[in-house]
Amino acid sequence: MSDREFQSIDFLSQKLRMPYPELMISALQSARLKYTPPLPKILCDLLSVEWKKEDAQSGVDLRIQALFPHLQGQPYLSGSVGVARKMKPLRIGVLFSGGPAAGGHNVIAGLFDALLELHGDSQLFGFQDGPSGVLTGKAIPITAVSLEGFRNVGGFNLLGTGRTKIETPEQLASALSVAQKMDLTGIVIIGGDDSNTNAAILAEYFLKNGCKTQVIGVPKTIDGDLKNPWVEVSFGFDTASKTYAASIANIAADARSAKKYYHFIKVMGRSASHIALECALTTQPNWTLIGEEIAAEKQTLSAITNGICELIEKRARQNKYYGVILIPEGIIEFIPEVATLIRELNALLSKGTGAHLEEVAERLTAPSRGCFQSLPKAIQSQLLFARDAHGNVALSFIETERLLAEMVSEQLAGKVPFASVTHFLGYEGRSGFPSNFDCNYCYALGKTAALLLDAGVTGYMACVRNLAGPVEAWQIGGVPLAHLLTIDERKGKEKPVIRKALVDLQGESFIHFKKQRAGWMLEDAYLFPGPIQFFGEKALTDAVPLSLRLEESRG
Amino acid sequence: MSDREFQSIDFLSQKLRMPYPELMISALQSARLKYTPPLPKILCDLLSVEWKKEDAQSGVDLRIQALFPHLQGQPYLSGSVGVARKMKPLRIGVLFSGGPAAGGHNVIAGLFDALLELHGDSQLFGFQDGPSGVLTGKAIPITAVSLEGFRNVGGFNLLGTGRTKIETPEQLASALSVAQKMDLTGIVIIGGDDSNTNAAILAEYFLKNGCKTQVIGVPKTIDGDLKNPWVEVSFGFDTASKTYAASIANIAADARSAKKYYHFIKVMGRSASHIALECALTTQPNWTLIGEEIAAEKQTLSAITNGICELIEKRARQNKYYGVILIPEGIIEFIPEVATLIRELNALLSKGTGAHLEEVAERLTAPSRGCFQSLPKAIQSQLLFARDAHGNVALSFIETERLLAEMVSEQLAGKVPFASVTHFLGYEGRSGFPSNFDCNYCYALGKTAALLLDAGVTGYMACVRNLAGPVEAWQIGGVPLAHLLTIDERKGKEKPVIRKALVDLQGESFIHFKKQRAGWMLEDAYLFPGPIQFFGEKALTDAVPLSLRLEESRG
Repeated sequence: MSDREFQSIDFLSQKLRMPYPELMISALQSARLKYTPPLPKILCDLLSVEWKKEDAQSGVDLRIQALFPHLQGQPYLSGSVGVARKMKPLRIGVLFSGGPAAGGHNVIAGLFDALLELHGDSQLFGFQDGPSGVLTGKAIPITAVSLEGFRNVGGFNLLGTGRTKIETPEQLASALSVAQKMDLTGIVIIGGDDSNTNAAILAEYFLKNGCKTQVIGVPKTIDGDLKNPWVEVSFGFDTASKTYAASIANIAADARSAKKYYHFIKVMGRSASHIALECALTTQPNWTLIGEEIAAEKQTLSAITNGICELIEKRARQNKYYGVILIPEGIIEFIPEVATLIRELNALLSKGTGAHLEEVAERLTAPSRGCFQSLPKAIQSQLLFARDAHGNVALSFIETERLLAEMVSEQLAGKVPFASVTHFLGYEGRSGFPSNFDCNYCYALGKTAALLLDAGVTGYMACVRNLAGPVEAWQIGGVPLAHLLTIDERKGKEKPVIRKALVDLQGESFIHFKKQRAGWMLEDAYLFPGPIQFFGEKALTDAVPLSLRLEESRG
Repeated sequence: MSDREFQSIDFLSQKLRMPYPELMISALQSARLKYTPPLPKILCDLLSVEWKKEDAQSGVDLRIQALFPHLQGQPYLSGSVGVARKMKPLRIGVLFSGGPAAGGHNVIAGLFDALLELHGDSQLFGFQDGPSGVLTGKAIPITAVSLEGFRNVGGFNLLGTGRTKIETPEQLASALSVAQKMDLTGIVIIGGDDSNTNAAILAEYFLKNGCKTQVIGVPKTIDGDLKNPWVEVSFGFDTASKTYAASIANIAADARSAKKYYHFIKVMGRSASHIALECALTTQPNWTLIGEEIAAEKQTLSAITNGICELIEKRARQNKYYGVILIPEGIIEFIPEVATLIRELNALLSKGTGAHLEEVAERLTAPSRGCFQSLPKAIQSQLLFARDAHGNVALSFIETERLLAEMVSEQLAGKVPFASVTHFLGYEGRSGFPSNFDCNYCYALGKTAALLLDAGVTGYMACVRNLAGPVEAWQIGGVPLAHLLTIDERKGKEKPVIRKALVDLQGESFIHFKKQRAGWMLEDAYLFPGPIQFFGEKALTDAVPLSLRLEESRG
């Protein structure tokens, strides 16, 4: 860390500590900095936490066993109250990986506070700009002062983040060299499915090469698709869903006041439709597409369009010419014919086929050509020109909300008056002030990560469970990353992955939604959760995601 | 009103009164329904309010005098404490006009409560779907029960709204006939500049035709451009600005965490840049365009693009490849060359010139052709195909944020890495839960309107002043609508209008912004006001718009 960076942090904290000039930070930021997340009972005395081993899950994929021999047979760990012990100081590095999610700073705060509680000489370093910081050793010491402006505040800007992966032999060797040079007891990786897969690869590599540095993962992603029997929800999901729900409800209130527009609202959440489902449950729009259902029922694009047109025609018969349609970001991949089209396009693009509409259309199979040609021109060009870093069609840039609005408009033309407005709710949900739930959850996750480091284990993901209950009763655990891994084929190669958890069509949340949605089509049963509240009654400030409550109620 | 409509309101109130099934309304909605807006001292005992006449403003336009002979010489009225009197019952109709703005329901609640306080036999009717309800007599009685679910809640859905104007002789006659059939003491029009102009026309017409029905206007518009010496701010501006500011700040937090994108954020607020300025002051993005400044300095589109490119290049030299640029919705009208282009296009479109790019381009003057051809193709088609109800270019559908992002991208290509995301923040700001400020302000406006009705005056706008001070010290007044009117030429005809108040480039808000903005360009001085809070310290929940505080501080 350069002197300049040190200075800038000191300067910030000075600014924060002095009686700040009006508006140097907002009134809410100032209030949030003073918030103290309540602790689960088990985390009230870290020195006496004891890890109990539970049976390792059987039936782990043999191919995973072969790839991760050193991580085999690890037990699930559950925290319980034991006898106070003496601890040794730890030297830990922490990093953010991937897109921001609200609460990340609290993971670091929890980790920092726990490390110091465990031993006053412990040290925490923050790798900058994501995993690339581990490769270059670009890190800053994290101190009580440097954390001052970041507790309960959104963003990943204390450290920055990035999408670099640590997977090639050279990258792994660099990471090992940095870990050794910095004499690190452990590295904490705050990330999603890919980043936690990376954490397992790194843990295995360190063990194989006799490096003492432990690796612990923390489950982050607003998308909510990092979810399994141990991880009830990833952090950031709650804040994102609540932020989007507030906007959706405002737009619904506007729709039924102005009575002019159908609002097609796309919400972030790449592959899975968890966010759309959560928002549907909390705002009750007239219609919500769920990707997993579309895939299961092999719905075609025209079936989806027809469904929306029918809804609009039925409402028109009640003199309602407005409404709200919710669309998950990843929907397009779930429509079988479009998924096939995209696969073909990716193959063509990788072969360098020029981006001329006609040329490309000619080379598609007949069904895909039909599908492609049925799309509005603007979407055709998006499919051809919007590419991601790997040269594939950049699905997040496809304006599905506009695609559907245009196809519906075409189909209704001359039959029913129809006007639409499209929206994409995305970036505003990733870095806002974390909800109390995310503040509390992340702070507990950080402390849990510290306890796992202190226990000397590696290749684990920190987890906090029983989240639908009161904070006091939350349980902590560690799940072996190897247990979460499975083999997937990516570009013809077998790769270990943590499979994204999709919406469970047999789960309580979806069943609850399915039971009610017909009632939301014609009657405007909109709910208005409003903006996230931080003060007042607990029912207002500390609500757990509704889908989580519904799923827990089953268990 | 049909029985069915009556039933639906009763049904709603029953639902609200019974111990509601979980989620029939949200926890926040339930809490907001219980909120009681604090009252200005002057409104604590309505029966003793006395209106003091202040000198009529001199220098009123002679053409206005000719158009509104019956409204001439009206004094400004200011509320003061007098002696309690005996009142008679009033029969009042109320309506929403134009786009929703947060707080509208509270105007009606204040009006209703005040009417009953003044006389227990008073009655309030709500005209449905905007001014058209006055033409058809479609109205519902407003009762304590029907208001139960609407206090402190967003939207205009208690009555609906619309954009019909009451201005033709036939329309005026219909309104008069309805007013007489319903035996109305008065009509309250909750609307913006056009709707209040309409209110004056209606008041004049009623007086001229010996109709006793008074007409009172209430200043509504999120845009903030209904502003004059008597109206410090229109209602809805605060909630809209705070809603957008929360999203802008979240996006800024994301930008500086992910460090990948320039976010071009367009905010609603048609003609004037008040909302953009208020949001700039409260979030401090890297750059904010202000339409009024662009017009005053006659900036060209390429000058604006160059300015943004320079900012991006300077930041790139500091290794910052991200940022936030704020764009007012109406900016495009303020760029002289684009304004000329649009005028020419409107003239061509009204002559029915076909919408072929080449054909249209040929018929433009040379400078406008150059301007048109410099625009990205997508924007060219928007200019041609997006038309409003009058057949003009629909400016609100022009994606200025995308226009600027694309032009910047083109100019920077190959020089500086640049990736952008565009946003439009609009509908989500009009109908959310009103901020405490808007709740209190609207409730006081409704009560003030009732007092003006009780005083027997017509052609007045209700106003509440001293808003930057504590609620207790707010003052109430009535300003003659005729004093706000001026003559404008619209489509070759002289028309009375309330001129939209633009951002005052000599005003404190703009001066404050101008002083600071250079500092926000390179340093990320982002502020995070967060979502609107309804509970907790007053500093968090009751903040007055910053621009209003700055402007008042001058006075």
